[in-house]
Amino acid sequence: MRVLVLGGDGYLGWPAALHFSAAGHDVTVVDSYIRRRYDRELGTDSLVPIATLPERIARWQAVTGAVIGLAVGDLNDAAFVTSVLERVRPDTVIHLAEQRSAPYSMMDQGHAVHTQLNNVVGTLNVLWAIAQTDPTIHLIKLGTMGEYGTPNIDIEEGWLRVTHNGRTDVLPYPKQAGSFYHLSKVHDSHNILFCCRAWGLRATDLNQGVVYGAETAQTRLHPELATRFDYDAVFGTVLNRFIVQAVIGHALTVYGAGGQTRGFLDIVDTVRCLEIAAEHPAEPGEFRVFNQFTESFSVLELAELVAALHKSRVRIEHVDNPRIEMDQHYYNAAHDGLLRLGLEPHPLSAALVESAFETVQRHRNRIDPRVILPLSRWKPNLAAQEPPEAAIPSGAALVG
Amino acid sequence: MRVLVLGGDGYLGWPAALHFSAAGHDVTVVDSYIRRRYDRELGTDSLVPIATLPERIARWQAVTGAVIGLAVGDLNDAAFVTSVLERVRPDTVIHLAEQRSAPYSMMDQGHAVHTQLNNVVGTLNVLWAIAQTDPTIHLIKLGTMGEYGTPNIDIEEGWLRVTHNGRTDVLPYPKQAGSFYHLSKVHDSHNILFCCRAWGLRATDLNQGVVYGAETAQTRLHPELATRFDYDAVFGTVLNRFIVQAVIGHALTVYGAGGQTRGFLDIVDTVRCLEIAAEHPAEPGEFRVFNQFTESFSVLELAELVAALHKSRVRIEHVDNPRIEMDQHYYNAAHDGLLRLGLEPHPLSAALVESAFETVQRHRNRIDPRVILPLSRWKPNLAAQEPPEAAIPSGAALVG
Repeated sequence: MRVLVLGGDGYLGWPAALHFSAAGHDVTVVDSYIRRRYDRELGTDSLVPIATLPERIARWQAVTGAVIGLAVGDLNDAAFVTSVLERVRPDTVIHLAEQRSAPYSMMDQGHAVHTQLNNVVGTLNVLWAIAQTDPTIHLIKLGTMGEYGTPNIDIEEGWLRVTHNGRTDVLPYPKQAGSFYHLSKVHDSHNILFCCRAWGLRATDLNQGVVYGAETAQTRLHPELATRFDYDAVFGTVLNRFIVQAVIGHALTVYGAGGQTRGFLDIVDTVRCLEIAAEHPAEPGEFRVFNQFTESFSVLELAELVAALHKSRVRIEHVDNPRIEMDQHYYNAAHDGLLRLGLEPHPLSAALVESAFETVQRHRNRIDPRVILPLSRWKPNLAAQEPPEAAIPSGAALVG
Repeated sequence: MRVLVLGGDGYLGWPAALHFSAAGHDVTVVDSYIRRRYDRELGTDSLVPIATLPERIARWQAVTGAVIGLAVGDLNDAAFVTSVLERVRPDTVIHLAEQRSAPYSMMDQGHAVHTQLNNVVGTLNVLWAIAQTDPTIHLIKLGTMGEYGTPNIDIEEGWLRVTHNGRTDVLPYPKQAGSFYHLSKVHDSHNILFCCRAWGLRATDLNQGVVYGAETAQTRLHPELATRFDYDAVFGTVLNRFIVQAVIGHALTVYGAGGQTRGFLDIVDTVRCLEIAAEHPAEPGEFRVFNQFTESFSVLELAELVAALHKSRVRIEHVDNPRIEMDQHYYNAAHDGLLRLGLEPHPLSAALVESAFETVQRHRNRIDPRVILPLSRWKPNLAAQEPPEAAIPSGAALVG
């Protein structure tokens, strides 16, 4: 099939593009390189060196003979989005092109607005372009488990059967997101649901857990095919951060008590989930939701796992939580849909953690310990602590 | 108290400003005049002539001696929002400054994006400015009953107690909005809830029904104090449209079967609801939701009422529904909160409809029958019916 991967230069987008290309599909990637601009803004970088997107594509062709198409542009440019869809005429659009960091979205007013504007408008433009180019295109959109928050009832896959005052309906699962980033995905989900109902579009919303790992069967083929490995406090996820802290002999910093429980999955399962969704498209008019994770862990459990596996003695240190979230809560989330369609999960293993230790050790000289500690706190500097002129930069200059 | 009315030049904003000023509060209005620009874009105008905002404010002072402050600017300009809050230091911010037309938001890609960007970013900027200027400011935000859609269970006021698999929680009421406009208000509600939880802001979200009427005790004092009367298919609401159609002898055009049932209220109740909310602020950290309407009617019931009251024979004509909505559905929505706090509703009366007939008759020469029929349809011209270049104008030029 013809597959368009939006955000194809990113942590998941690049391995996804390779996975679909290796499976024989006709792949085109779209990216604005904004993720690399975030790195320059924050003074961060992928621990594993990454080639430019044209270099990656050329290397993939040299190694396998397969050709991946490329379109460079911004989803916030509606004319660009439509022109790409008109040219490529994809069967499936895999939309991974959003600002994906909760801490980034909480840095200040400008970053909050940038995140919601970038994500919501980009997705609106994709929806309009699909409706006007070919409404039968299957949209696979990356959401997040964080859209649900931590309700005191079981989390279902997107929909909840509610009986109230003697009547019953199946309604969108109530959302209680915990950052402006997570909220942007909630907004996307509502917009996509409406377009499925109003225009008959077909969409799969993948509410993904936290991804770990940086290697797939394809990225391993050549160093220039590697994807990002982020360990900083803004874009890095918790397991990567613990592994880097262990390697440099720093205490593993757990936010609060560490009882925050989330769904996790291996990057090899992420690319497979995308493939399963593409192979089994939603019906016309259907807004289908899968919860995309394989196991649940608390933050403290992950820290204990890393500490136990590392050869030197690593301490666990509980630090003040920069986020506003419960650090002890009920958590039981359904994730049956993708399993029913054939996902065979790769559970988190000692072998994976040990292989990550080796990767980090290999690039140890690239570690900047300063970027590991939290840069943004969920509580802004409130009144009188800081002049508003300084605290509120204009939105325009933030990500340029 | 010091009250800041955002959107103070609008249909509800101007009467609200007068109502608070008449009650002795210190009122400042903020507006960008964008509503008047929409009129120029669409070739529409208020049936009742309206003065400019400076003229209105001067007239109010001449009539009553009371001074209303004015700040002209756009909520999408974060620095402007913060500077106004810093200068005015309000106790209460009444936020009525959003693009409020569902048909406008459905015209095309550019209008959809403009609506969500304008409403969501404007509200985000207000939230940040409150957090950084004075987190104790009470935000009163106009939402819409349309956020709920038409579920097959009773609609509650913002929250729903759910028992599921033996566990119980009180969760945000699931939202199923029916246009990009209604969706923008859903997004706002989620963003405001988060800020109440994360930052301890206090907010009241007023999910308002359809407002009718154009006169309050204050607007009647002088023709230059009049507020808008919109009857066009984009910004006019259904009762106004029927009244204008009756006066010009046009059939009352009911979309589909006309069983669409919605909550309605008189504009005099709107301004009183805002006052009640301001007099009884939400607690710090509380996201309080009221459903702001007094009676439910189906569209057909309203048409029959207007037809029965008009002196000449008026036909009712069922036309193809340009919207995508159910025209027969269950509808039972709670609206107890404001009643408990003292609202005394003004039910829709023959006297009000007859007074509206007189108003319309008086300005009959200003009626443009061409603007009454639907301009936008919920289904866009899908693939191959129209070249995408024509169907998707760039967003920038739409509302200038």
